[in-house]
Amino acid sequence: MTTYQPVGMYSPMLKPDARTKLLDAAIEVIRKQGYAATSVDELCRKAGVTKGAFFHHFESKDALAVAAANHWSATTGALFAGADYHDHDDPLDRVLAYIAFRRDLIQGTPAEFTCFAGTTVQEAFATKDDIRAACEASIFGHAETLVADIADAMRKYKVKGDWTAQSLALHTQAVLQGAFILAKAKGDAAVARDSADHLRRYIELLFKGSTKKEQSK
Amino acid sequence: MTTYQPVGMYSPMLKPDARTKLLDAAIEVIRKQGYAATSVDELCRKAGVTKGAFFHHFESKDALAVAAANHWSATTGALFAGADYHDHDDPLDRVLAYIAFRRDLIQGTPAEFTCFAGTTVQEAFATKDDIRAACEASIFGHAETLVADIADAMRKYKVKGDWTAQSLALHTQAVLQGAFILAKAKGDAAVARDSADHLRRYIELLFKGSTKKEQSK
Repeated sequence: MTTYQPVGMYSPMLKPDARTKLLDAAIEVIRKQGYAATSVDELCRKAGVTKGAFFHHFESKDALAVAAANHWSATTGALFAGADYHDHDDPLDRVLAYIAFRRDLIQGTPAEFTCFAGTTVQEAFATKDDIRAACEASIFGHAETLVADIADAMRKYKVKGDWTAQSLALHTQAVLQGAFILAKAKGDAAVARDSADHLRRYIELLFKGSTKKEQSK
Repeated sequence: MTTYQPVGMYSPMLKPDARTKLLDAAIEVIRKQGYAATSVDELCRKAGVTKGAFFHHFESKDALAVAAANHWSATTGALFAGADYHDHDDPLDRVLAYIAFRRDLIQGTPAEFTCFAGTTVQEAFATKDDIRAACEASIFGHAETLVADIADAMRKYKVKGDWTAQSLALHTQAVLQGAFILAKAKGDAAVARDSADHLRRYIELLFKGSTKKEQSK
């Protein structure tokens, strides 16, 4: 998931506590340089808290990473829940508006628009199972928020196939995660937006048998 | 890219040199635990070479990572060049056979079937530009091998759209890279194979306007 707004660091009026400052710092720094390359000392410096405060709130760097993945799920979850792609009567329009929303978030440098959970799980999947599980909950939990709209669209448009609404929801996340990797490799957001366009085209073809461009001809 | 066969480690008859042993070890270990978490000492132990030998062949761990990405490109490149998905008269059949080939490679644990370049670039993209560039060359260079077949298929099937052969080639890599992330998060290869199926379905819809299953009805 994408376009994370730190709860604390840039909103001093909210008087974030040390724990929130550390979670925001972890998400910002790890998205840029990865998990193993990031030290507790660096996170404390970035958050402006003492090492004593760190270990008051977190037993270890791994414990912080689990909490950061959960924090990421909560804050991006609020962003998606409040977004206006839900404001369409037609369930297919909601799904397509979600894809457009995700595409619009792909702006700036890759560290700004890519996914904390997808980045972290690449390093942690085989060696740190508690971090892997928190990242799984983040990615798969977000995919789950799309299932009802896809299932409603399948009913409305009488679409049946050898795939399920849940499988298509997960595929949308696979496309976005992979698009982020290509953007990181190229240092360019445009290649990721192109994949979001292919995803939109796929969904149009699945449900309508043609793309929007063809329909308007 | 996927299913890497170490040149040296498991083929003692080939008498691999220390350099090849280190490259094979780097690919195996980094695919499992990430780049920053892997030390030179660990790579030397795994490869069965001395630290002196390491620094005889590589100036630094970063230099090894660049060489490992190039080694990955060369060895997986040979695997793809020799694969039988090329053996179809119809260019669309070649593209679909490529997707089927990639899907068939998604077996075993994620560390076995996922991509060294895609994994490493997640950590290195913003902080180690030489590693990023080697990973870009690996992923984008492989995508380039698909462009001629896609372009031929577009001509044969008279497919025109607001997308290019190169863009679809890159999208296939985005889907696979993202599918690997979901497989790592879930600890299960099946979710990645599902995304490969969605990719195959997308290409069938783009070129034929229906999926293979629908065509056989």
